[in-house]
Amino acid sequence: MKQLWSGRFKESLDDLMLRFSASIGYDRRLYAYDIQGSIAHCKTLHKAKVLKAVEADKIISGLKKVEKEFETGKFPIDESLEDIHMNIERRLTTLIGPLGGKLHTGRSRNDQVALDVRLYLRDQIGHIDKSLVALAKVLIAQAEKNSDRIIPGYTHLQRAQPVLLAHHLLAYVEMLGRDRERLQDTLKRVNVMPLGSAALAGTNFPLDRHYTAKLLKFPKVTNNSLDAVADRDFVAEFIAAASLLMVHLSRLSEEVVLWASSEFGFIELSDRFTTGSSIMPQKKNPDAAELVRGKTGRVFGHLTGLLTVLKGLPLAYNKDMQEDKEPLFDTVDTVLMCLDVFAGMMKTAKFKRLSPESLAQSGFLTATDIADYLVMKGTPFRKAHEITGQTVAFCLDAGLTLEEMDLPRLKKISKTFEEDVFEFISIENSVERKNVFGGTAGGRVREQLRRLKREWK
Amino acid sequence: MKQLWSGRFKESLDDLMLRFSASIGYDRRLYAYDIQGSIAHCKTLHKAKVLKAVEADKIISGLKKVEKEFETGKFPIDESLEDIHMNIERRLTTLIGPLGGKLHTGRSRNDQVALDVRLYLRDQIGHIDKSLVALAKVLIAQAEKNSDRIIPGYTHLQRAQPVLLAHHLLAYVEMLGRDRERLQDTLKRVNVMPLGSAALAGTNFPLDRHYTAKLLKFPKVTNNSLDAVADRDFVAEFIAAASLLMVHLSRLSEEVVLWASSEFGFIELSDRFTTGSSIMPQKKNPDAAELVRGKTGRVFGHLTGLLTVLKGLPLAYNKDMQEDKEPLFDTVDTVLMCLDVFAGMMKTAKFKRLSPESLAQSGFLTATDIADYLVMKGTPFRKAHEITGQTVAFCLDAGLTLEEMDLPRLKKISKTFEEDVFEFISIENSVERKNVFGGTAGGRVREQLRRLKREWK
Amino acid sequence: MKQLWSGRFKESLDDLMLRFSASIGYDRRLYAYDIQGSIAHCKTLHKAKVLKAVEADKIISGLKKVEKEFETGKFPIDESLEDIHMNIERRLTTLIGPLGGKLHTGRSRNDQVALDVRLYLRDQIGHIDKSLVALAKVLIAQAEKNSDRIIPGYTHLQRAQPVLLAHHLLAYVEMLGRDRERLQDTLKRVNVMPLGSAALAGTNFPLDRHYTAKLLKFPKVTNNSLDAVADRDFVAEFIAAASLLMVHLSRLSEEVVLWASSEFGFIELSDRFTTGSSIMPQKKNPDAAELVRGKTGRVFGHLTGLLTVLKGLPLAYNKDMQEDKEPLFDTVDTVLMCLDVFAGMMKTAKFKRLSPESLAQSGFLTATDIADYLVMKGTPFRKAHEITGQTVAFCLDAGLTLEEMDLPRLKKISKTFEEDVFEFISIENSVERKNVFGGTAGGRVREQLRRLKREWK
Amino acid sequence: MKQLWSGRFKESLDDLMLRFSASIGYDRRLYAYDIQGSIAHCKTLHKAKVLKAVEADKIISGLKKVEKEFETGKFPIDESLEDIHMNIERRLTTLIGPLGGKLHTGRSRNDQVALDVRLYLRDQIGHIDKSLVALAKVLIAQAEKNSDRIIPGYTHLQRAQPVLLAHHLLAYVEMLGRDRERLQDTLKRVNVMPLGSAALAGTNFPLDRHYTAKLLKFPKVTNNSLDAVADRDFVAEFIAAASLLMVHLSRLSEEVVLWASSEFGFIELSDRFTTGSSIMPQKKNPDAAELVRGKTGRVFGHLTGLLTVLKGLPLAYNKDMQEDKEPLFDTVDTVLMCLDVFAGMMKTAKFKRLSPESLAQSGFLTATDIADYLVMKGTPFRKAHEITGQTVAFCLDAGLTLEEMDLPRLKKISKTFEEDVFEFISIENSVERKNVFGGTAGGRVREQLRRLKREWK
Repeated sequence: MKQLWSGRFKESLDDLMLRFSASIGYDRRLYAYDIQGSIAHCKTLHKAKVLKAVEADKIISGLKKVEKEFETGKFPIDESLEDIHMNIERRLTTLIGPLGGKLHTGRSRNDQVALDVRLYLRDQIGHIDKSLVALAKVLIAQAEKNSDRIIPGYTHLQRAQPVLLAHHLLAYVEMLGRDRERLQDTLKRVNVMPLGSAALAGTNFPLDRHYTAKLLKFPKVTNNSLDAVADRDFVAEFIAAASLLMVHLSRLSEEVVLWASSEFGFIELSDRFTTGSSIMPQKKNPDAAELVRGKTGRVFGHLTGLLTVLKGLPLAYNKDMQEDKEPLFDTVDTVLMCLDVFAGMMKTAKFKRLSPESLAQSGFLTATDIADYLVMKGTPFRKAHEITGQTVAFCLDAGLTLEEMDLPRLKKISKTFEEDVFEFISIENSVERKNVFGGTAGGRVREQLRRLKREWK
Repeated sequence: MKQLWSGRFKESLDDLMLRFSASIGYDRRLYAYDIQGSIAHCKTLHKAKVLKAVEADKIISGLKKVEKEFETGKFPIDESLEDIHMNIERRLTTLIGPLGGKLHTGRSRNDQVALDVRLYLRDQIGHIDKSLVALAKVLIAQAEKNSDRIIPGYTHLQRAQPVLLAHHLLAYVEMLGRDRERLQDTLKRVNVMPLGSAALAGTNFPLDRHYTAKLLKFPKVTNNSLDAVADRDFVAEFIAAASLLMVHLSRLSEEVVLWASSEFGFIELSDRFTTGSSIMPQKKNPDAAELVRGKTGRVFGHLTGLLTVLKGLPLAYNKDMQEDKEPLFDTVDTVLMCLDVFAGMMKTAKFKRLSPESLAQSGFLTATDIADYLVMKGTPFRKAHEITGQTVAFCLDAGLTLEEMDLPRLKKISKTFEEDVFEFISIENSVERKNVFGGTAGGRVREQLRRLKREWK
Repeated sequence: MKQLWSGRFKESLDDLMLRFSASIGYDRRLYAYDIQGSIAHCKTLHKAKVLKAVEADKIISGLKKVEKEFETGKFPIDESLEDIHMNIERRLTTLIGPLGGKLHTGRSRNDQVALDVRLYLRDQIGHIDKSLVALAKVLIAQAEKNSDRIIPGYTHLQRAQPVLLAHHLLAYVEMLGRDRERLQDTLKRVNVMPLGSAALAGTNFPLDRHYTAKLLKFPKVTNNSLDAVADRDFVAEFIAAASLLMVHLSRLSEEVVLWASSEFGFIELSDRFTTGSSIMPQKKNPDAAELVRGKTGRVFGHLTGLLTVLKGLPLAYNKDMQEDKEPLFDTVDTVLMCLDVFAGMMKTAKFKRLSPESLAQSGFLTATDIADYLVMKGTPFRKAHEITGQTVAFCLDAGLTLEEMDLPRLKKISKTFEEDVFEFISIENSVERKNVFGGTAGGRVREQLRRLKREWK
Repeated sequence: MKQLWSGRFKESLDDLMLRFSASIGYDRRLYAYDIQGSIAHCKTLHKAKVLKAVEADKIISGLKKVEKEFETGKFPIDESLEDIHMNIERRLTTLIGPLGGKLHTGRSRNDQVALDVRLYLRDQIGHIDKSLVALAKVLIAQAEKNSDRIIPGYTHLQRAQPVLLAHHLLAYVEMLGRDRERLQDTLKRVNVMPLGSAALAGTNFPLDRHYTAKLLKFPKVTNNSLDAVADRDFVAEFIAAASLLMVHLSRLSEEVVLWASSEFGFIELSDRFTTGSSIMPQKKNPDAAELVRGKTGRVFGHLTGLLTVLKGLPLAYNKDMQEDKEPLFDTVDTVLMCLDVFAGMMKTAKFKRLSPESLAQSGFLTATDIADYLVMKGTPFRKAHEITGQTVAFCLDAGLTLEEMDLPRLKKISKTFEEDVFEFISIENSVERKNVFGGTAGGRVREQLRRLKREWK
């Protein structure tokens, strides 16, 4: 099949080279955006008097016919035509005759593909936003449902201080909130209209680029034609934002895997989101969480890959940039799938109630409260910390928990201890006393819940 | 030296382990932020009635004394004290006595270090912004100074269409503009106050966190204490923004290296930003551009590194997170240095005037204009493109440039050609005809220049 | 469809989860290796008296029937069966009845998949080796064909010293040689037989693992069952080796892009490996080289991705590891395609002969030779370098090339210059005098050629 | 300070540029290698009759004096002299006069720095090998000391089958063994002598490069001068090998962190390799393991960074390549430190003995053995797996462990069960029955131990 650009060439493309350079295998998913862009371009050509009304109408109805063919699976893709743009143009010409050849006036594939990718990504950010909201709502609902449960809070995976499970779950909603914000910020730089930049210098035809932008609902047009066709920053920025989103999912994945272990035993995952073993009949594996954690690597990889592609490219368009699409598409697919699977898994999970013994297991969750108790009695914090350290050391030697200590023993370590220390260091009081904005006290967590329910509705 | 946390420990830290886990080697650069944060914390403790006015005053004046010691190079850093926070607290206690031990009340290193890094990064984003502005101004000035120069525009590093040098330079100002915007967006997520989150659960003391925020000029406080101490998103987001900035500098670097080659010969770099060879006396190497291009790898590496660190970390703080600082510091240093060197190099560079022959060298810069010429005479674009391709092929066979063709020869290829084609395809007219918004026509570029001068002042 | 592992489960897998966790979409390409491995496993079960001869025979002929179905495109893939292993086992059972259920005795998917990936990669390294050889031969042939051509050698993309084009091309053959060596080293760690490790602990059945290894032509078996199922080092090592291979191709790509520019004009690429523009009819773009350069990012990305997956995974198998396959498969495909396209592009390329004027263009290619000339006359090198620098500076001011200087002028700079300097610094003599092992003198390059032709036959 | 290459330059280097391009801040650590290489170069110059014996002697004794100055901390580093090579040469000239200027004859910084880095890395691989051996020995010793301990083996962090702790620890020794092998393979490509390649083309002086190689104990010399100065593959390959080494340490780190949690409670780390909290007096944090896990990101980052630097660089030397040193040095330091800290941490750790109840906790560690029991009684594996799944489901509903089931209950599920099933599924028998090569049975693990003690002595 003769290429549309082959005028000056004498030999045709090597088959291997055709397969190598063709993008039709993956860019076909852009068809709707390509047609949407072509319709707007066609109207702009008409406004610029490059096309007559009757020509524009005929092209547009041809493009709509092409779109219908795609939607019904009848579009005859020609692999030898390199990419989706050439496939659509050639098909259009087959359907409406040589007039189809006028559509590409004042346009280059360089600005056309930049437009298509921007339209696609704008749409997908909308889809991701919806999935983000759905997952946040699941976490908020689980937080609300389990609002009285206390779990150990960890640092260094060592039990540190008691916290509300709801507080812990809502920490992830905060992260999702930042992801959302970041994607909206990215969208500002995606949502810019490049058409009219043509190959690199702008076009010879008096196209009203702001009119095209209005038709396609872009708030801005690109300011510099060279930059417009050479820019893939918005793709990289999106994948960077997606990488952080995946960091968050991977962190929660790690916790779900830990919680689902028989050692932690905090959570029971549904059969619907776990799988078994081909050999060990008892296994119920948290595959969903593991796989999300694993897929984080894939998204990081796409970021590394795209940055590598862009580094050191001179202006304007270079073929290397064709390597933007697969990482972008796969990142979008991965993020959407991971969010949705996570929402399903978290929605169907059951949190187990931890027994008081289990909470007290390591025995020292409220050691910091002892130090603070001493501070409130007037001891400088550093000194109080030291005394508490000695108390813990004493307990460890004696095989006791803090709760099992009595006042005489405590007084031997420091005179400052009084009877009221025992109430002070109960798990429940410890939680309730973290009553600062953002703290884990019940009232503060309910405050968070209310705010988040407003923000994520 | 006994560690401040050593109450429950019986053996002291292994020397190797101390060296391994200490961060004092690099986090000392946070001293001013740590002291600034401690002063605000101290005032908040006083407001919460945890410290008396006289205590607070004494601590604050102690902290200021410590700061002065740093500024004058007299602070006695104790490598065995792990980090900058412990060094400052111990020194304070030495200076003002056991009262110093009260400062850490209601605070943990977890929220303290989060605060310090945020204060640091907020400041540095300010510095980077200044350097961005300086570089943009240099490029704008060069664009203005050379506003009538035409250079070949390239795609695939093949000569494509003539463009104004100014247009080309301003494409980079567009990129810097996006960098600036992105950093401001990042700043929104840096500029949040974490203190009061303590170790992970919030503090037992009734600290007014919004008051602390006000003292430190933070518009927001963190909403969830677990998230507050576990969050390093803002560091990763910053390094991602910095990576894109470096992509831009690397692209311009590549062009400078090309332009400075004897084959391109577009630019003459100043002796002050080039170096020679230890063995080849004639060499004048564009080291600055090459090194900036190389340092792009370093920043990408920091991004990969930090994302790897964060992936899969359970809540809340884990020691892995200490690995955020060196990549952050080095990214800041690298970006600032690269921007400043680039400004120096571009400011002192001289653009050479390309001769008409040199511009016509490849002969076909205006081939697209021929196609557009035919379109304007009524030929559908695809057909026009084909005819032009044949014209180019004819020229190549005949060893002619487009300019050297005469009308009879052209007419043999297509009857549509008329005498006016020659004026149409002059280099100057080709440029001037790209008169769409964002195009390379002189008026459009002057429009860009005016806007950019406003935006970057 | 009921999963083969579903004994203890009450609810069936969520559809979304099934799609998320299934690998059948991409692991079907392992079918032949899976069957090959199953046949060997079957024979080993027979040797261990777990299967009777008649059972083993029936299973093996069933497996061969399954293989035939794949080869003829008739295998009915069931997407609900997760992966290629389950698809084949289920199909086998359909074909031969419940006896098929005996095949998985003493085996787990954990060791099965480890085996399949090793068999696959071993094969692919063989294919890559062939493509490496083919490319090396093309470069060697071009070197031989153009063995008398001199080009400027560059450092910092500044003309440095004259070299033979052949010498330059053979530098890449050296790189390919290291790639080959590295892949053979990697193969040692790929070529180890994991079967018999079962899920993680080894199997209850007395399998002769060395017998299985012999059947499958593995020189070694894995030493530790936990390690055997948890190890994907060999995949990461392969992708790292592939990354370096891509570095080499990207470097040559960069040079081809430069050489094909009208500024350098060193090479004419064939129409068969270049493409045109949708808008600029004169363009002939070095797409193949650009795309290879771009695809380097993709392979680097896979490396980052897989390392991220593996980091911090506890023993033994975790589902995250399923994310090893897509990066591996895509790396293999990319490397093979890039090598083959490169061989085609380089084979059909024509090197242009550079005119003496063009070589002398920057005028100072032999400045180092002047310095060496002075050294041979007794001047210390540092001093000689300085004098030559002054000579170059003089030429630049006077607008002369070195060749255009006359003896009186030279003598003004240093008395040491004699008439013989002019012969000494001719381009040809400069090349010939680099007569050390590995140098660019003709004889040395012919020596290289002879050696490389032996090594790459 | 005037640069040694400044002959043709009229303006001196900008201060900013000097700081930017200087490498003396970090390459000073190469001093001993630089001097070692210079001495060999000096002898080769003498052999080539470029230097007289007396000259060579004087230079060599000067170089030794310089070395002594470094060793005693008395070398006066001049920051304005860019790099270690220029510092040493200038100092030599100060010490011995203009004769020092002869040392650089026939050499360029390009081949000089390539040599220095190769000498350095060869040495460091030796050091890393020693640290690898030390860590392997610690793990082997712990395996031997705890050779009778059974722990749950995990897949998906779910308890899967019982294994010997020794078997688990030795899995890591296997990984270290591969690291060792990989580093030795890398060494083959590090251990090649580049001197004599000069700037890029080889040298004008008749240097016997094989003689230089012999003096410096290199088994090979580089074959192509262009490749020799442009090649940093060996650095990237080393960092890739180091990345896999860090993957291994990060995996063991993750396990140590899990094991040290109160939920797992498998290990007690020494006070000497753990740290406390600034606020929570009870904390004993596995910082060493966490920090090693975190530092994995740093090494991955260096790999990404260096590959990015190398991608697309044309031949021969480019300044970008100066960015090889910091990632290399930091990788070496990180790997050595992590190995040594890990050896210390693991040596001083105590493994706790798990009670039978704790092992039976999840109740189903030996479910696979039930399936295999049924297979041995004649049931096809798939069927046996299904029956066992039902047995597990029954237990879960009834709140029983496998051990608590009685024969009548089992018979209701399958008639095949007999009294001997209970002995078959004891934890100890389960372990002992994994009696294949590489399996976890005691005899097999002792076999491993014997082999590994031989290999790592």
